[in-house]
Amino acid sequence: MQSELLNPLAESSRIEKMPDPCTMVIFGASGDLTKRKLIPAIFDLARQGVLPSGFTIVGAGRTAMSHEVFREYMFKALKEFGRFQESEKALWETFVRGLFYVTIDPGKPEEYAKLKKELEVINEARRAGENVLFYLSTPPGMYSPIIKGLSGAAMNKPGGQNAWVRIIIEKPFGVDLNSARQLNREVLSVFDEEQVYRIDHYLGKETVQNLLVFRFANGIFEPIWNRNYIDHIQITAAETVGVENRGGYYEHAGAMRDMIQNHMLQLLALTAMEPPVLFDAQQVRDEKQKVFQAIRSIRPDEVHEYSVRGQYAAGTVNGASVLAYKSERGVSTESVTETYVALKLQIDNWRWAGVPFYVRSGKRLPKRVTEIAIQFKKTPHHLFRHLPADSLDHNNIVIRVQPDEGISLKFSSKIPGSFMRMRPVTMDFRYGSSFGGHLTDAYTRLILDCMLGDATLYARGDSVDVAWQLITPVHEGWISNKNSKIHDYTSGTWGPKEADELLARDGRRWRLP
Amino acid sequence: MQSELLNPLAESSRIEKMPDPCTMVIFGASGDLTKRKLIPAIFDLARQGVLPSGFTIVGAGRTAMSHEVFREYMFKALKEFGRFQESEKALWETFVRGLFYVTIDPGKPEEYAKLKKELEVINEARRAGENVLFYLSTPPGMYSPIIKGLSGAAMNKPGGQNAWVRIIIEKPFGVDLNSARQLNREVLSVFDEEQVYRIDHYLGKETVQNLLVFRFANGIFEPIWNRNYIDHIQITAAETVGVENRGGYYEHAGAMRDMIQNHMLQLLALTAMEPPVLFDAQQVRDEKQKVFQAIRSIRPDEVHEYSVRGQYAAGTVNGASVLAYKSERGVSTESVTETYVALKLQIDNWRWAGVPFYVRSGKRLPKRVTEIAIQFKKTPHHLFRHLPADSLDHNNIVIRVQPDEGISLKFSSKIPGSFMRMRPVTMDFRYGSSFGGHLTDAYTRLILDCMLGDATLYARGDSVDVAWQLITPVHEGWISNKNSKIHDYTSGTWGPKEADELLARDGRRWRLP
Repeated sequence: MQSELLNPLAESSRIEKMPDPCTMVIFGASGDLTKRKLIPAIFDLARQGVLPSGFTIVGAGRTAMSHEVFREYMFKALKEFGRFQESEKALWETFVRGLFYVTIDPGKPEEYAKLKKELEVINEARRAGENVLFYLSTPPGMYSPIIKGLSGAAMNKPGGQNAWVRIIIEKPFGVDLNSARQLNREVLSVFDEEQVYRIDHYLGKETVQNLLVFRFANGIFEPIWNRNYIDHIQITAAETVGVENRGGYYEHAGAMRDMIQNHMLQLLALTAMEPPVLFDAQQVRDEKQKVFQAIRSIRPDEVHEYSVRGQYAAGTVNGASVLAYKSERGVSTESVTETYVALKLQIDNWRWAGVPFYVRSGKRLPKRVTEIAIQFKKTPHHLFRHLPADSLDHNNIVIRVQPDEGISLKFSSKIPGSFMRMRPVTMDFRYGSSFGGHLTDAYTRLILDCMLGDATLYARGDSVDVAWQLITPVHEGWISNKNSKIHDYTSGTWGPKEADELLARDGRRWRLP
Repeated sequence: MQSELLNPLAESSRIEKMPDPCTMVIFGASGDLTKRKLIPAIFDLARQGVLPSGFTIVGAGRTAMSHEVFREYMFKALKEFGRFQESEKALWETFVRGLFYVTIDPGKPEEYAKLKKELEVINEARRAGENVLFYLSTPPGMYSPIIKGLSGAAMNKPGGQNAWVRIIIEKPFGVDLNSARQLNREVLSVFDEEQVYRIDHYLGKETVQNLLVFRFANGIFEPIWNRNYIDHIQITAAETVGVENRGGYYEHAGAMRDMIQNHMLQLLALTAMEPPVLFDAQQVRDEKQKVFQAIRSIRPDEVHEYSVRGQYAAGTVNGASVLAYKSERGVSTESVTETYVALKLQIDNWRWAGVPFYVRSGKRLPKRVTEIAIQFKKTPHHLFRHLPADSLDHNNIVIRVQPDEGISLKFSSKIPGSFMRMRPVTMDFRYGSSFGGHLTDAYTRLILDCMLGDATLYARGDSVDVAWQLITPVHEGWISNKNSKIHDYTSGTWGPKEADELLARDGRRWRLP
């Protein structure tokens, strides 16, 4: 770490722009996400001193609960998931005064008038202003009724002149191209695109944002960030966990919908995009969209050439024996849901022609890691002739998204000693050790961005659409194409051997992250 | 450090090529260099198991000494300077049997016959073969008599068919263009260029060798290693020491002859050279020579524009008060010898046109450090518009030659937190922590290379000549040019303020190493 670095904590609390006063209404307030992510994230904003005065949270949900019970529940959540410290007691006392709960069955259109009424009462007391942020943290089946409900009670339009209403929609945004389009149509019949914030928390991660800084705030990477110097790119998101208690949901999702369609394609787009003119919502998302549009479609009849899917069998992960996917609760014993996907994607543009992007994601792999690895070509000429050519490794740049967020650069170096011999060595930059302390959670950043009206790190409707355009024919091919099979892989291994063959056919292999 | 790295010690002891049996004759064997550098280096080769069987060292010098006294003296030296360990006692016992001493006044031509005779006797006993390596470690005034003496006794030509005779000549190789040419002529009238090894120990340093590996065994640096991406380059060799007990010598040398003409220009050449076709003595030295030839001459009438010289005044270094240069023993109170030089050099070729190389070296500076800093241009477009443009620092790559040999890369990174702010961070590769253990001393490597007949890391006659062609007009200008002055600088500071102005005129400034 450079000595010129200021204290990053002191830095983050210097705010350029303060969000407008507002009320945040969370649908699904009794759910897991609110407890694990949203409340800790919002309290973190309080910690940073960036919440506007009068800021109010209204939990809304079917579970009947008093304000008090909700507050107690949220306090427990904060202690469990929010790094709460006793010294923050006073801060919590302030924060909790802005916490409310309204019992509502969001499936019943007539209840929205009640919600509206209660919001008015709360607002009266809190003077939170007319800005409202809705957060859909319910199961996706509720999105449509909620959107209609809000519209029916005319809560989709701001109540005052300069006021705003925004809506954050959690993933999954559809389950295929049709359902995503349907949902998009419903949302956009009620809200303007500018009001809609489709969240993909991967985009809020520090390293993901830093990818843009790395590429575009530095002069030395962009010149080599293209087909002239890059051999291929590998994007990996590996989990050690299985489906846990989400078997029922996962059966209908699978790795492709759960990870590839959103997170992985977003990472790919940020890696591959052209430099935007400005770092703002429109320019950044325009450039990402251009990448999505340039990804070559995989037709159903060629899915076996460009995709590999797998499902975990029993095995050992981190020393513990684990069940096969088919034996998990909520999973059919005949299931053909994929828990692993590897894709070979090609981007048909000037920068990337001929540079494959290998993307993989799986559960029950040996290690929890998400990374983007830029694999460079070898030197065009091998001048250390007395050394075997294969003693020179590829250069690579690896951007670790989680855990141990950071960037490393592998290059060849001379082994100290009286002879000219080389080994790859790694230069490393770790976020944690360079800046110290906890990294801000993705939700913290993203919720603040939404309050500030900055959608740069949210997915735009057109990009969700084009991602589904890409994914849906693969799903179709998996069903219709006789050459496409789902392969078992032992839990605790790096997926089915067919995934290795996908790269081996191109004379390449997966990194061991 | 990568797990794939083998144990570097085990690595270095695997030798590809074993040197031929030979006898090494050291002139100036009772001197400082033999004690501090040569014997420790040669013993290190014994440690590595790369000395040929029968390898023999014959110390030659005016000081009368028996073999036994010389051996005792060298053993003491080894314990003081050679990291000798008790466990190496047995190795020393073997080594010492190959250590001899011959008393000779190298100024007397008639004594070489005696030396030759004694070498024959020793060789008889040792069966060291016919190969001979002469090492000139005497004051430079003795080079000429020794070369003539060797020639007179016909010791300059090998005694047998496939045998070789080589000669290592220590710096300084001349004191100006004329004396260097005169010396070169004398050497080459007796030896072929292939027999001559002009040593510059900087070239044997691990990091210096690694500079070639870094540039040419990796594909990602070469594309940005040119005027399109590099703003300028700074080469610094800073010492904290003064002239110590070498005042008498230094008065006639100065920083320009002592550091710039050899070490610094060698570093510059390795930094700037085109990729050689092969890593061998001819190709590497041809490419370096092309750089030397492309350095734009500084005419005497413009020395004040491209050079700054300084002399240390009294001050404080590392907390200790130190004398002014003029108060040092052996130094004239009227001295105008420079202890600091900064040069702006320009290389007139396609790669470097318009990229200045700022080179500086000085004594009594705040820190002992030698480094090459590649300063890159800023990004061509500043897309994070809400940030002040100067919040984005230059990228740089810094190659540290000593101490803490390593390479670091500075780039901008996002500061963790809810806003987009940046700070420069550093990726670091340290030789020591990556490979562990002691780095091989430069002399170890270079002596072995000479025994193997590899002159890649030695200076060739033509490059010494062209370096003097460059330096000599500057020296002349310092005398004749009325605008050129020598500036005092306080010991413990980074040289005279005029050196800062040299860069400030170009809108740049020196790094703080």
